[in-house]
Amino acid sequence: MTMPAPFYPGAPSTPSKQKKMNKDEFIQALTQLGKDRYHSLHPFHKLLHSGQLSFEQVQAWALNRFYYQWSIPRKDLTLMARINDVDLRLEWRSRVIDHEGDIDGNGGIKRYLQLCETLKLDLDYVKSCKGLLPASRFAVDAYVNFVGSRSLLEAIASSLTEIYAPAIHAERISGLSKHYEWANDYALAYFKTRIGQARKDVEFGREWVIENALTRDDQEAVLGAVRFKTEVLWAQLDALYYAYVAPGFIPPGAFVPNGFAERSWS
Amino acid sequence: MTMPAPFYPGAPSTPSKQKKMNKDEFIQALTQLGKDRYHSLHPFHKLLHSGQLSFEQVQAWALNRFYYQWSIPRKDLTLMARINDVDLRLEWRSRVIDHEGDIDGNGGIKRYLQLCETLKLDLDYVKSCKGLLPASRFAVDAYVNFVGSRSLLEAIASSLTEIYAPAIHAERISGLSKHYEWANDYALAYFKTRIGQARKDVEFGREWVIENALTRDDQEAVLGAVRFKTEVLWAQLDALYYAYVAPGFIPPGAFVPNGFAERSWS
Repeated sequence: MTMPAPFYPGAPSTPSKQKKMNKDEFIQALTQLGKDRYHSLHPFHKLLHSGQLSFEQVQAWALNRFYYQWSIPRKDLTLMARINDVDLRLEWRSRVIDHEGDIDGNGGIKRYLQLCETLKLDLDYVKSCKGLLPASRFAVDAYVNFVGSRSLLEAIASSLTEIYAPAIHAERISGLSKHYEWANDYALAYFKTRIGQARKDVEFGREWVIENALTRDDQEAVLGAVRFKTEVLWAQLDALYYAYVAPGFIPPGAFVPNGFAERSWS
Repeated sequence: MTMPAPFYPGAPSTPSKQKKMNKDEFIQALTQLGKDRYHSLHPFHKLLHSGQLSFEQVQAWALNRFYYQWSIPRKDLTLMARINDVDLRLEWRSRVIDHEGDIDGNGGIKRYLQLCETLKLDLDYVKSCKGLLPASRFAVDAYVNFVGSRSLLEAIASSLTEIYAPAIHAERISGLSKHYEWANDYALAYFKTRIGQARKDVEFGREWVIENALTRDDQEAVLGAVRFKTEVLWAQLDALYYAYVAPGFIPPGAFVPNGFAERSWS
């Protein structure tokens, strides 16, 4: 039985005969991907940012999103371990410090836990990852594995969704502050700090990728990596919507907020 | 900032002080996991097996399930590559042959494609994996990665959901035959053949695991591996339900059956 090559879904398709894009076209293609697929468009985020989620639904979001937050430094360290160029490694190091903190430990993860605390989640439970939707875990782990197994160009390119991130952070801060009583500076500290960090990271990453995508196939591989990453982000919200909005079927073992029925499937 | 060890979700918890289960108790614990969490309990399967899905919804199921089918030999080969004991490798080899076929190539994957063909899916599209729900891909890849990265005991144990499989295959064959006009012997050949194969595989796997789970912690690791695997199966159906039943939000890029609206999220 013959199968089309390459078998692995998401791998760049057969060699392209198309011309390499110039810098403007390439940036335009990257921008368009965000307009079509970034998770700011997801119905769950629309509900979240317009104040239409209950306290318990926001809890479920924060709890599941923690695993993403928590895994980003693992992802960056996985990437750094594959980089031979010390300058590039040094450049990347600040991302880990941004999330994990310097010696003081006051990084993004700690700020993110302030949100969880404000939402009255048990922090040990959050950190145990025991209440995660399995789909959240699978999506985030797929990201870490992608960065560990694909070409360095694709691995770095997968971080380029940061291009679209400052806008969603700004929208989130203003939406949450407006609609939810609990959404004070302490709770939103992670997102407020992150806006500036993402801007700095994305400028470096985008320039590096543009410079190192030497052929049209490289450029397509970059776009494929960014598309993959939008799927990682989108799938997490699909799972939240399914479990906690509609139809509201919480998978066995996942977090059951107050007022939600613990369903027996058997 | 301290985090509870071990950080990785799903890893066995802190050393147990509980007594090792005897063989009957251990088998009982494995059986109970299936009763509580096997995907035969999932609402999507209940709809499928009772004839309540449209032709197009069944198409979406078959298309997504293909990736699981297609990845099982990759999973088994990943496992075999880690096994030093030639006898055990030989024992495991028949699983790959069952799926991929012998020299003739007439294995389970080919029989599974008969189902896709009957459902009027474009087989090149199916095999390209381009229309998959990202959540299907992430869940299945998590399984392959689990088998490649966990202890050999956990890797082998994760296949033990086969204990529960013959019953669901029987239920599926009778349910589909009864309710769907297209469900003839040609379409269902995969499931019909699989019943006997799964029985043979599970007897070997269960005995091996029982013999090699030497401590209570080993036994808990086995139960954790089986629980993980039920999550892999369950998450695939959650994603199908969400995208094709309710609320019916198909993620960008995934298969849009006839009569389903291609939704623009932007």
